[in-house]
Amino acid sequence: MELTPSDVWTLTSAALVLIMTPGLALFYGGLVRVRSVVNMMLFSVSAMGVVGVLWILFGYSMNYFAEGESGFAGSPFKDFGLINTDPASFIGVGFGAVFAMITTALISGAIADRVGLGSWVLFSGVWATFVYFPVAAWVWGGGWIQNLGSALGLPDVIDLAGGTVIHINAGAAALALALVAGKRIGFGKGSHQPHSIPLVTIGAALLWFGWIGFNGGLATETGEAGLILVNTLAAPAAGIVGWILVDVMRGKKPGVIGAASGAVGGLVAITPAAASLSPVWALLLGVIAGMACALAIEWKYRLGYDDSLDVVGLHLVAGVIGSLYLGFFAFSDGLFTGGDAGLLLVQSISVVSVMVYSFVVSLVIALGVKLVTGLRVPPQVEEAGIDFAAHGEEAYAYASPEVVSAPTR
Amino acid sequence: MELTPSDVWTLTSAALVLIMTPGLALFYGGLVRVRSVVNMMLFSVSAMGVVGVLWILFGYSMNYFAEGESGFAGSPFKDFGLINTDPASFIGVGFGAVFAMITTALISGAIADRVGLGSWVLFSGVWATFVYFPVAAWVWGGGWIQNLGSALGLPDVIDLAGGTVIHINAGAAALALALVAGKRIGFGKGSHQPHSIPLVTIGAALLWFGWIGFNGGLATETGEAGLILVNTLAAPAAGIVGWILVDVMRGKKPGVIGAASGAVGGLVAITPAAASLSPVWALLLGVIAGMACALAIEWKYRLGYDDSLDVVGLHLVAGVIGSLYLGFFAFSDGLFTGGDAGLLLVQSISVVSVMVYSFVVSLVIALGVKLVTGLRVPPQVEEAGIDFAAHGEEAYAYASPEVVSAPTR
Amino acid sequence: MELTPSDVWTLTSAALVLIMTPGLALFYGGLVRVRSVVNMMLFSVSAMGVVGVLWILFGYSMNYFAEGESGFAGSPFKDFGLINTDPASFIGVGFGAVFAMITTALISGAIADRVGLGSWVLFSGVWATFVYFPVAAWVWGGGWIQNLGSALGLPDVIDLAGGTVIHINAGAAALALALVAGKRIGFGKGSHQPHSIPLVTIGAALLWFGWIGFNGGLATETGEAGLILVNTLAAPAAGIVGWILVDVMRGKKPGVIGAASGAVGGLVAITPAAASLSPVWALLLGVIAGMACALAIEWKYRLGYDDSLDVVGLHLVAGVIGSLYLGFFAFSDGLFTGGDAGLLLVQSISVVSVMVYSFVVSLVIALGVKLVTGLRVPPQVEEAGIDFAAHGEEAYAYASPEVVSAPTR
Repeated sequence: MELTPSDVWTLTSAALVLIMTPGLALFYGGLVRVRSVVNMMLFSVSAMGVVGVLWILFGYSMNYFAEGESGFAGSPFKDFGLINTDPASFIGVGFGAVFAMITTALISGAIADRVGLGSWVLFSGVWATFVYFPVAAWVWGGGWIQNLGSALGLPDVIDLAGGTVIHINAGAAALALALVAGKRIGFGKGSHQPHSIPLVTIGAALLWFGWIGFNGGLATETGEAGLILVNTLAAPAAGIVGWILVDVMRGKKPGVIGAASGAVGGLVAITPAAASLSPVWALLLGVIAGMACALAIEWKYRLGYDDSLDVVGLHLVAGVIGSLYLGFFAFSDGLFTGGDAGLLLVQSISVVSVMVYSFVVSLVIALGVKLVTGLRVPPQVEEAGIDFAAHGEEAYAYASPEVVSAPTR
Repeated sequence: MELTPSDVWTLTSAALVLIMTPGLALFYGGLVRVRSVVNMMLFSVSAMGVVGVLWILFGYSMNYFAEGESGFAGSPFKDFGLINTDPASFIGVGFGAVFAMITTALISGAIADRVGLGSWVLFSGVWATFVYFPVAAWVWGGGWIQNLGSALGLPDVIDLAGGTVIHINAGAAALALALVAGKRIGFGKGSHQPHSIPLVTIGAALLWFGWIGFNGGLATETGEAGLILVNTLAAPAAGIVGWILVDVMRGKKPGVIGAASGAVGGLVAITPAAASLSPVWALLLGVIAGMACALAIEWKYRLGYDDSLDVVGLHLVAGVIGSLYLGFFAFSDGLFTGGDAGLLLVQSISVVSVMVYSFVVSLVIALGVKLVTGLRVPPQVEEAGIDFAAHGEEAYAYASPEVVSAPTR
Repeated sequence: MELTPSDVWTLTSAALVLIMTPGLALFYGGLVRVRSVVNMMLFSVSAMGVVGVLWILFGYSMNYFAEGESGFAGSPFKDFGLINTDPASFIGVGFGAVFAMITTALISGAIADRVGLGSWVLFSGVWATFVYFPVAAWVWGGGWIQNLGSALGLPDVIDLAGGTVIHINAGAAALALALVAGKRIGFGKGSHQPHSIPLVTIGAALLWFGWIGFNGGLATETGEAGLILVNTLAAPAAGIVGWILVDVMRGKKPGVIGAASGAVGGLVAITPAAASLSPVWALLLGVIAGMACALAIEWKYRLGYDDSLDVVGLHLVAGVIGSLYLGFFAFSDGLFTGGDAGLLLVQSISVVSVMVYSFVVSLVIALGVKLVTGLRVPPQVEEAGIDFAAHGEEAYAYASPEVVSAPTR
């Protein structure tokens, strides 16, 4: 069969989403201190390896229910290794692969500076298998959340590109993993400042760029694709404004990390909603998400969990905001846009279900990994810097005499 | 309506152009000294926020004349917030949004190291409203420049992707803003050397990459799209060669900044022209632009305006070259390619009109902002480094003992 | 003619492949020590200039045989400057241009730290003309390798996106050039450690991203495009796993350079094969390639050639593996998948032919350049650092007092 326009758009989008995971590696890598960059980036890169392989072996197969299938997840055997899979579905298989990679990698921001690669690889593989693949099947693959609306005689749950499946899922897992891992040595004492703002900028740029395909890649209609595009520009633009506003109002100097985080907050919030909101409501959602995340990232200091790079404060918070916001403003079904509370109800059920499931199962997995590997590296490795001690690499070898003496030329 | 191939190409191109603004942030960020990187990048990032929001509110609406409309710009009300806008046009709305972002961000290269974020945000919002949106309407949205040819009985003005609307417009504004802002402390004394060549490379790479969509995104025909692609490869390739040639001929050692700037010069010059030149003429244009820009970036030292990162020397100069070159070499209508001086005349009128309008109005806006905010940060902030003083961030926190002592391992 | 879906996919892919060469500049740039970054990146950037110009002048014309043409390569005159070329083929012309750029740039990894720009420019232009353009014509442009199968009554040679034309070709040339250039001062003594892991990560990310278009850009069928996509995800994912496994098994700490190199190894290996393998076999190929490359990069120390950044160990080795692997596992024709040894035979002939041709001619060109320019910079330039001495630029100007004293804030 000849390529169709929407085939080409999904192919392109797969490439766009592919670069989000290294983008995340760079975003996270820039946010950690200089001695933990390699470790941090390796978590994302290894997730591309591990989850990529699992997806092809059985992840794709688990992530949807074929006709007649039901239960916890799709059977891992029907498409095992994609041996009996119709090549006509391979574009979708590839598009799904890169979603699985980035979602898993997102979690790793919670455990900067203190967890070994082996522990992470174990966690990520098990997590993808028992959390990501099933939840994707529930929401997108014909499972119970996708059918919740019709089961209750209410509107269908709306989750375009992963408010629940991606962001709430990864955010709740991050919280669980952070709790099990415990705090970094020196947490809250200012000793973990981000080491490279340009790296954060590069990472955020690749994330926004890829998000165009992330949100839009399955659109098949001109109007729908255009709406998703506009909303995927509107919400992060407004998120930047929202975050900076909060900073200015609180007397904090506005910087790039805030602006980039505001964009990410807006992007997370619009993820479930990009095909179901008018652009003005997307702007409002972006502002709200940017402001809320700017406030939420401080919870960790008050509540005392060390979600190092704010996976909770960005992804969980904005994911919940975006998913629930639909209950109020989604086309025709929102509470303020012609509907009743039905959509808000099913959205809430899906949000809570995914959050609780992911948190609990991730907690169990994390505790299991802790039993097997200890999870954390020894304190002396953490203090000396995990990169050289655990990976034999340091992020930079800059300080040759030439450079140090050069700046005044 | 189902996605068409050209819908998909425009969608893809919107993503490509989207990443140009962070690309510019990195290009500019690498070119400033290490104490001003955050400030510099924040100008581009905040432009994505501010201009993105304005575009959706009223910028798109202002940037074209609906049937029956005329005057200074399109009415801001007809599509206010895109509430009454046909979703079928949303792909174009998104594609236009990213153009507005990058054009505004381009200007900021003129004011490195010395202007506060508030001043820039104010300038950029007003500039987009009173300069960018109207000029886009004049040239592309059914306004007087688009109709100039038929009004005079001459060929139509050619400006494929923004020789006037983008580059001359931003370049003239940059000159005005640089004049009002005044020179950096230490201007011309060698104290502002670029702090990161790799960052410049990353930025230039993203710019060239995105430019494929920038120039080509609205093509609907195979031959036209292919021509634009080839010319968008030819001119920057030749621009690299041209710039390096000038360096070598003048006894200057060839480096990455020159090569990258040569590519940008070639890209700027081909922007209005990519659909209207045979590839050999695109090569020649690229060489000319690369060589001219290599010479033009020194004007600022002779004439004494501090266009810090050469927005004038690259964008204004190459924009003018590309726009006028069409008068000589455009298919069938160029002076040397079968036409008479008519095309050259209308091209010249459009070039001069946009340049003068943008310069004058930008001057007024800049003076207005200066009245309100002072425009420049205090001298002690500029000397100490604007990043930490004004943004509470420094680009890098590298110099932990581990790194400094590491290189001889 | 209106854009078709496959036109759009090829256009998009051209943009994707375009960014691979700057991606390579960053990958290679990160792998060299801090005093050679500018020189290293400039090799890739200048190749974009030189090869881009040559491609339009006569490279495209040489890279295929028109009807009635035969011999060493296509005539350089039929499409000289693309003056008489049908615009309907311009999308393909652009797609081919970016292949020529990256292939030439790949070679430069072999000569880090010690070769001047003039020498490289001379080598790269002559190499593209006498090696790349002809070999592309042989394999893809209707030449003898493309016709080998039918000439021998055997299956046709399979080389989807350049196992021979790109990787073996560049790898063999790199070996020749490294031998002629000789070893770096201090080779093998640990004084050349990579200076920036984040830069390596950025580069590898752009490479994988672009590779989606590299392998897939000419696909016209849904199933074929999907298969290529999946395999271009599967093999590098497995390559990451494979390389890390080798490191762990040998007691070496796993790091980002290995993981990124494993991905590249998997990508190289799948390049010829992505449309001809079932995804499980692509996984296996990726693991094999990742493991083999992890071992092969040590040959240079044993055999004493200074292929500085392992163009041989990655591109030649994985290119050979991928090309021969097809002889065993390609759909229907592989030895283990229903065929006989015929495919393996033609694959082997094409591998050996391209390897020998490229090695010998590259050796001659390198020796010729050495006669003209001396090839290497003077030892004192190499020791002091080639960037400042030969290019007047240093990669970074970081060490302003602010930064050095900042980290404890």
